[in-house]
Amino acid sequence: MTPGTGGFITLEGGEGSGKSTQARRLVERIRAAGHEALGTREPGGSPRAERIRDALLSGVVAPLGPVAEAMMFAAARIDHLDATIRPALARGSFVVCDRFVDSTRVYQGAVDGVDAGLLAGLERLVVGETMPDLTVLLDLDVATGLARARARRGAAAPDRFEREAETYHEGLRRAFLDNAGREPGRCLVVDAGRSLDDVAETLWLIVGRRFPALGRGAAGGAP
Amino acid sequence: MTPGTGGFITLEGGEGSGKSTQARRLVERIRAAGHEALGTREPGGSPRAERIRDALLSGVVAPLGPVAEAMMFAAARIDHLDATIRPALARGSFVVCDRFVDSTRVYQGAVDGVDAGLLAGLERLVVGETMPDLTVLLDLDVATGLARARARRGAAAPDRFEREAETYHEGLRRAFLDNAGREPGRCLVVDAGRSLDDVAETLWLIVGRRFPALGRGAAGGAP
Repeated sequence: MTPGTGGFITLEGGEGSGKSTQARRLVERIRAAGHEALGTREPGGSPRAERIRDALLSGVVAPLGPVAEAMMFAAARIDHLDATIRPALARGSFVVCDRFVDSTRVYQGAVDGVDAGLLAGLERLVVGETMPDLTVLLDLDVATGLARARARRGAAAPDRFEREAETYHEGLRRAFLDNAGREPGRCLVVDAGRSLDDVAETLWLIVGRRFPALGRGAAGGAP
Repeated sequence: MTPGTGGFITLEGGEGSGKSTQARRLVERIRAAGHEALGTREPGGSPRAERIRDALLSGVVAPLGPVAEAMMFAAARIDHLDATIRPALARGSFVVCDRFVDSTRVYQGAVDGVDAGLLAGLERLVVGETMPDLTVLLDLDVATGLARARARRGAAAPDRFEREAETYHEGLRRAFLDNAGREPGRCLVVDAGRSLDDVAETLWLIVGRRFPALGRGAAGGAP
């Protein structure tokens, strides 16, 4: 694959869907196939955007309301695109990003209720032509996702908080699926309930089909 | 003047130009002429936007960079428009706002260097059809503005800080004038170096010319 022909891949999904792990493995696999690949994430992904991420996670923005939060996410994305994503794509690298515009539509839109027209306008303004070439939604049934989260915490059985969270996570899952269904050309849904290896293999097949030169490089090349 | 026929007036200018005083007097005069008038300001103007104003003035946003600041100003403006300005205009009130889009163009754009395309896109997205019908730039030569600020502080002579500030204020004045010159249909420049009464009189003539029904009401009506 010649320089300038990389691609922009984003992974989306709820907690416990394995996005971060799969993003890391995908970057390694693209590199092993002999191509440049950059792994990044949102919010964050550039020094200034990481500072905005810290501010968002610290809770100082939340009291200012969901629109202010959405605007801060947008500010982080502007820097992430300018400082990290666009330069990498311009030099022909692949970029694999853990969360991007679809998380905004789901968390700020469907969950927090920010006006969809405002979010769409902001997305056009901020992202412009730099929409992902491919977005994979790692879809997981809520029971499995919560069981994984429980295992991470080392808890034996579902607690009260977890049962209350089920409705929330069901809504989240539905919103991610609805959103992906509206853009079938960009978004593919992968069953993330299987083993990490199985999911990684499916992801690699999908990526190879979307970027044929990369697929060929992988088939004939490095491990 | 019948309900639904109010207007949106903004006052702009640097520190010491008398915007706040003139805004207050203009609101009183419109009311004295028998029309509803709402005085408001930016950033702020609604409970949520005032909280965002506090966050901006407290300095927690500045370290996140000028784009993040511009996005927070936009978040405040969205709430101000939705909660205060549009409902007032919809019921036929006049709205007099101390600072609005032109301050954003000057402070976030010309001074802080936020990309003009981003600011213009954000302005279209946030303000939409609710652009001011009339904007008056209260223009003041820098020496007079700084002398007024000095008098407020009770200082006798220019200090070192003030002399360093001159270049900054010259740039600010130039940016406000350039911006007003690009939209002569909306923006009028008034010499704010005269007495408060003289400036208020000029402002009232301008407003009466732009909103004839209001002008007639004033000429034949209350003091």
